[in-house]
Amino acid sequence: MERVSIPTTTPAETLARTLDFFKQHPVSAIGLGSFGPLDINPKSPHYGFITHTPKAGWAQTDLLGSLTRVLNIPISFTTDVNASAYGEKSATGVENLVYFTIGTGIGGGALQNGAFIGGIAHAEMGHQFVKRHPDDTAFPGICPFHGDCLEGVASGPAIEARAGRRGETIPEDDETWEILAYYLAQAALNATLTLAPEKIIFGGGVMAQQHMLARVRKQFSQLLADYVTLPSALTDYLVLPVSADNGSATLGNFVLAREKSYQR
Amino acid sequence: MERVSIPTTTPAETLARTLDFFKQHPVSAIGLGSFGPLDINPKSPHYGFITHTPKAGWAQTDLLGSLTRVLNIPISFTTDVNASAYGEKSATGVENLVYFTIGTGIGGGALQNGAFIGGIAHAEMGHQFVKRHPDDTAFPGICPFHGDCLEGVASGPAIEARAGRRGETIPEDDETWEILAYYLAQAALNATLTLAPEKIIFGGGVMAQQHMLARVRKQFSQLLADYVTLPSALTDYLVLPVSADNGSATLGNFVLAREKSYQR
Repeated sequence: MERVSIPTTTPAETLARTLDFFKQHPVSAIGLGSFGPLDINPKSPHYGFITHTPKAGWAQTDLLGSLTRVLNIPISFTTDVNASAYGEKSATGVENLVYFTIGTGIGGGALQNGAFIGGIAHAEMGHQFVKRHPDDTAFPGICPFHGDCLEGVASGPAIEARAGRRGETIPEDDETWEILAYYLAQAALNATLTLAPEKIIFGGGVMAQQHMLARVRKQFSQLLADYVTLPSALTDYLVLPVSADNGSATLGNFVLAREKSYQR
Repeated sequence: MERVSIPTTTPAETLARTLDFFKQHPVSAIGLGSFGPLDINPKSPHYGFITHTPKAGWAQTDLLGSLTRVLNIPISFTTDVNASAYGEKSATGVENLVYFTIGTGIGGGALQNGAFIGGIAHAEMGHQFVKRHPDDTAFPGICPFHGDCLEGVASGPAIEARAGRRGETIPEDDETWEILAYYLAQAALNATLTLAPEKIIFGGGVMAQQHMLARVRKQFSQLLADYVTLPSALTDYLVLPVSADNGSATLGNFVLAREKSYQR
C-alpha cells in the first residue's frame, strides 16, 4: 500500500519514525529484517537485540522489543539477508538455497528444506576468512572486528578502500574485479561444501556490475575443481536474485509476517 | 559382538571381505559410514556411490549397492564424519553440533536440530579454503583437487609434507602446531558463522596431540574477536569427542542402523 524509506540514523530517531509510520498505517503483522548480528534465541534475555554490530550507536539495541512494546502485533524477526533468502524461496520454490548480499557489508542467509539454517543463531557468513588473492596481500582489509575477513576484503567499502576511489569508477578490465570474484567464489565454494544447497544467489549493489557474476562463476569452477557434483549447470547454480531492485527481502518479510500472524 | 578391521585395498577385495564377514555374522541392519564424497541423493542414478575421491581405485564405486544387492537388509548410508557427529549427538544429547576429524584427511559433519546438515548432499567442509598463515605461504598444500584447501594444509599428511617428517616426531614448541591451530580455528570459525552450532568437536588422530585443543581455542578466540556470542564458555564449545578411541562413528552408525531398521 505504501513504500517508505527511513534513514538509519540513531536508534532512538529511526525507531521513533518507524513507530510513527505504523501508528498512521496500522497493520496486522510486521516482517522485520535487520542488519546483524542479532540475538534470535527466544530464551535469551537479549532476544530481539542487535548485538555486536560495528554500526555506530546500534550495538545492544532492543530492536524487536522497541516495536512490540508499542504495536502489540505479531512481528517476525530475522536478518535482512535471511529475509532475502526467504523471498527468493517464495519466488522460486527452491527450498535449499544460500543468499549472499554484497554491498556496504556482506551477509549470507541460508535455507535448508525451507527453514533457516542456524542452530542457535542465524548465519553470519560475511565474516568468514578467505584465502587471500596473491595480488592482494598488501591490503589489510577494513572489517573493524576481523580485518581481512570476507566483508573486510570484498564489500563495497573494501573495494573503495583498496582502489582509493568509488567502485562505479573502476574500469571493467581492472584487476580489482578478478580479486573480488576470487573472494566471492570462495564464499560460494564454502557454502557449497558446508550446506550443499540447490542454488546460490548473489544480490546487493556490488553485483549490479553486470560482468561480476560471470567472473564469480569462472573462479568458482576453477576452485571447486569438480570435487563435488553440482545439482545443476553452473549458470543455474550461481545466479542473481529473481526479485528485481533488491526486492527479495521485501517479499521475504511479507511472507514471514504472514506466517507469523498465522502462528499467533 | 565382534570387532573387525578390514584394510582398505581395492574396492573388489575390500567389499568381498566385508560381505564375507556379514555372511558369517548375520545382522538385521547396517550403519555404513564412508569416506566421501558420496552421492546421498536417493533419486540419483549413482545413489550410494563414492564419487570423486582422490583415493586410488575408489572413485565411482557403488558402495551401498554392492552391499544391499547381497545382504538385503536396511543399510543407513552417510559419511564417516557424519556418523561421528551422530555418535556425539547420541552420547551427549546435543542436537546442533559440528564434528571435524583431523587425520589422513579432514572431514566435517554437522547436525541441526538432530538432522544432518546438507541440502542435496552431505557436507565436505574439509575442502574449504582458509586464509594462509603468514609464516606458511611457501607450502603449496597437498590436496590433489585444491592444493592448499584446509585438508591440503592441515591434514596429517600435510603436516608431514610441510615438516619433512612424521607429526609425532615434531616437538611441541615447533611452529607447525601454531600454523595448524590457525587453520583449524578458521574451520571452527566458519562453522560458527555458517551453522551457529551449540558445540564444535575435533576428533581424529592429529587431535591426539594433547596440546592442540588449547591452541585451537586460543586462535579461534582471537579470530572471532567477540563478533558473535558463543552459546557457552569456549572450553565447553570447542571440545574433543566424549567417545573414547575415535568411537564416535561406531556409536553413530549403530544408532543410524537402528533408526534405519525402524523406518523399514
